[in-house]
Amino acid sequence: MEIEMSERNLRGNLLYAQSGGPTAVINTSALGVFETALQDERISGVFAAYHGVEGLLKGDIIDISQEDSAELAKMRKTPSALLGSCRYKLKDPAVDDSEYRLILEIFKKYNIRYFLYNGGNDSMDTCYKLSRYFQAAAYDCQVIGIPKTIDNDLVATDHSPGFGSTAKFIANMVAEIGIDASCYERPQAIVFEIMGRNAGWLAAASALASLSNFGPDLIYLPEIDFDLEKFKADIKQLYQRKQHLMIAVSEGIHSADGTPVGYVAGDGKDAFGHQQLGGVGAYLAEQIKELLGIKVRAIEFSLLQRCASHCASERDLHEAYACGKAAVEAALQGRSGYMTALKRLRDEPYQAEVVLVDLAEVANSEYKVPRAWINAAGNGVTEELVKYVLPLTGALTECEGRLHPDWQALERAGLPDFAQLKLSKVE
Amino acid sequence: MEIEMSERNLRGNLLYAQSGGPTAVINTSALGVFETALQDERISGVFAAYHGVEGLLKGDIIDISQEDSAELAKMRKTPSALLGSCRYKLKDPAVDDSEYRLILEIFKKYNIRYFLYNGGNDSMDTCYKLSRYFQAAAYDCQVIGIPKTIDNDLVATDHSPGFGSTAKFIANMVAEIGIDASCYERPQAIVFEIMGRNAGWLAAASALASLSNFGPDLIYLPEIDFDLEKFKADIKQLYQRKQHLMIAVSEGIHSADGTPVGYVAGDGKDAFGHQQLGGVGAYLAEQIKELLGIKVRAIEFSLLQRCASHCASERDLHEAYACGKAAVEAALQGRSGYMTALKRLRDEPYQAEVVLVDLAEVANSEYKVPRAWINAAGNGVTEELVKYVLPLTGALTECEGRLHPDWQALERAGLPDFAQLKLSKVE
Repeated sequence: MEIEMSERNLRGNLLYAQSGGPTAVINTSALGVFETALQDERISGVFAAYHGVEGLLKGDIIDISQEDSAELAKMRKTPSALLGSCRYKLKDPAVDDSEYRLILEIFKKYNIRYFLYNGGNDSMDTCYKLSRYFQAAAYDCQVIGIPKTIDNDLVATDHSPGFGSTAKFIANMVAEIGIDASCYERPQAIVFEIMGRNAGWLAAASALASLSNFGPDLIYLPEIDFDLEKFKADIKQLYQRKQHLMIAVSEGIHSADGTPVGYVAGDGKDAFGHQQLGGVGAYLAEQIKELLGIKVRAIEFSLLQRCASHCASERDLHEAYACGKAAVEAALQGRSGYMTALKRLRDEPYQAEVVLVDLAEVANSEYKVPRAWINAAGNGVTEELVKYVLPLTGALTECEGRLHPDWQALERAGLPDFAQLKLSKVE
Repeated sequence: MEIEMSERNLRGNLLYAQSGGPTAVINTSALGVFETALQDERISGVFAAYHGVEGLLKGDIIDISQEDSAELAKMRKTPSALLGSCRYKLKDPAVDDSEYRLILEIFKKYNIRYFLYNGGNDSMDTCYKLSRYFQAAAYDCQVIGIPKTIDNDLVATDHSPGFGSTAKFIANMVAEIGIDASCYERPQAIVFEIMGRNAGWLAAASALASLSNFGPDLIYLPEIDFDLEKFKADIKQLYQRKQHLMIAVSEGIHSADGTPVGYVAGDGKDAFGHQQLGGVGAYLAEQIKELLGIKVRAIEFSLLQRCASHCASERDLHEAYACGKAAVEAALQGRSGYMTALKRLRDEPYQAEVVLVDLAEVANSEYKVPRAWINAAGNGVTEELVKYVLPLTGALTECEGRLHPDWQALERAGLPDFAQLKLSKVE
């Protein structure tokens, strides 16, 4: 049995591809794949499809063995999707299997026996359909998904690589902007518009800035139907107790009937049929200005939040690599139709392991912020949410995810540790 | 003479204040002041006016000796203006000297004999006027300005503390967003809107991202009159040779008659009478969309660029501290009516020293990007500009400001060092 597997594996090449929006750590998952695969003699060639399945359909196949190892090592510090990405959803094979037939042909031509696809929800769906198709076509190919999303909306994994680094950047910038805005006496409101179409994990993660004493006062997530009148009441109430207001909002908040809040930028939808959103921050800032007549500012983190490698979380990098490496190992063990996933073993000290979960379980589901981690009023998060996110933004060793950390803990958690002056008046 | 000065100094207190927009390093200048003043026995009390001259006029005076030294030390990592800031311009004493009389009264009450004001152009003007007023009133008080501005528009200094850190953040983010945007095949244009009302130093500094291979293709500065038709021609020409366009633009660009380009956000002016600008990035992105019909995105760095302490330049921190420390030393030497300034001694390896310059020379002038450092077409910068900025974003030791740096040099220069893959096709 072992010999048979070994023999089978010897004849195959491995193909890796990236898909969807890049993250600060997707190239580190690729590195985990490449370094593991390149040194395993059961894999003959280590290839990548340039620009995801879209490049695959064109037969755009890259040979990773030609790369300098020093440049490969630098992938750890490089954002974007270095193997090229796409936003391309394969057609339903039950309706039209022409793309699947083409992919099978290309796989046969290049003798691809291991296919690893690194992406989010839609990519895991692609992965799942391909694994089923190869099975039905009796083509021997191990298909494994590798999770990637800043949005953290993949199910069946505690969290996804990419999320921790974006959460760290957002928490740092919200705290830094918060302390910046506090330096003037005049009242001011800042609305942070944060990525997250259906799942509010990233806006929720801005709450970590509170550990540096400059967190958002109000947080609005797509998990809770947005009500403009209630928002105005929240703002009025908040303004009675403080002059500098900080509001974090997911780009995808919507009213009870599903209508997106505020302006809709552009008129198009993306290839997956998602409405392109934007401008909700500016819209809410305008509402606050009308309501209170104070200085307002909308800040959109835009692409910065997904590519700020200079601020990547050490733990996120570590786990991204581990998910890539484990995917190769799983494929070599003959597993197919799975995604590598992170299973949290404990919070303090944080411990997690990489496991395999069934792609059927992952495809086309969305992991949203649980209602229990959102406060009763629906305009903030609970300590449990902070406890969940905190270990993911931090340094690799001894980040204990404590809720009330001392100086060292703040540094370890990847959060700013601002000077707190007494500002005692001279007599 | 020495004894006399020593006696005079013994009787006085020192007052420090911050003004204008915060930077990532203004608190480090404050730390340079406090640590130097607290340990000098010639200074009896080390005070700060809370919220700049505005707080001073209210007699809002803080006692720095009451602060914990551990918290003071953390000021190095803390953005914002921890002593509070203001945007308040004193009236012209020739017209109305009531504010000056009030300040003199407060100075006498608190026995302030050293006044250090940390700010930009307008603050240096305040500083200058106060030093003249005290002189005319025969009130013995040494007045020294400490430079601070992300805009780098102070004259008589090679550059200003605050600029290097913002330049580093902008160069890092432009490079990271540039490589992020390059991962898709579809054409795309990104317009970066960067702070700079009359001086384009920060937009110019985005050119450093080119050293990481993802710099802006076109840069528009307020130093060059903006012409929309020429802009469109630039864009069309650029699109003929590449699909991913990166355009950096100062918020303050204007046409030949002085009209600001694009939408003007709000209708107000600030306390100094400056028109509040904004939205030029969105406006130009819209122009590109109409012209080429491709995906466009405007990214505004907003407050992020001035408060990103997590990305502060080591050299900037070092020089900010040195300018604060030298201001105390100058005041103790009986100098008044000066600003501490940075004099560059050489580029490779970079060397600079702190000198004193006359406030009369600084007040109400603006340091702009020299025409010779802008390319002939007026839509980019020269190598001289890059050579000037490069040492300011870097690590403290051995940052040699080389123009074509190797791996170590990029790291030392505080710039991202991305993996460069060959992407060789499989046969």
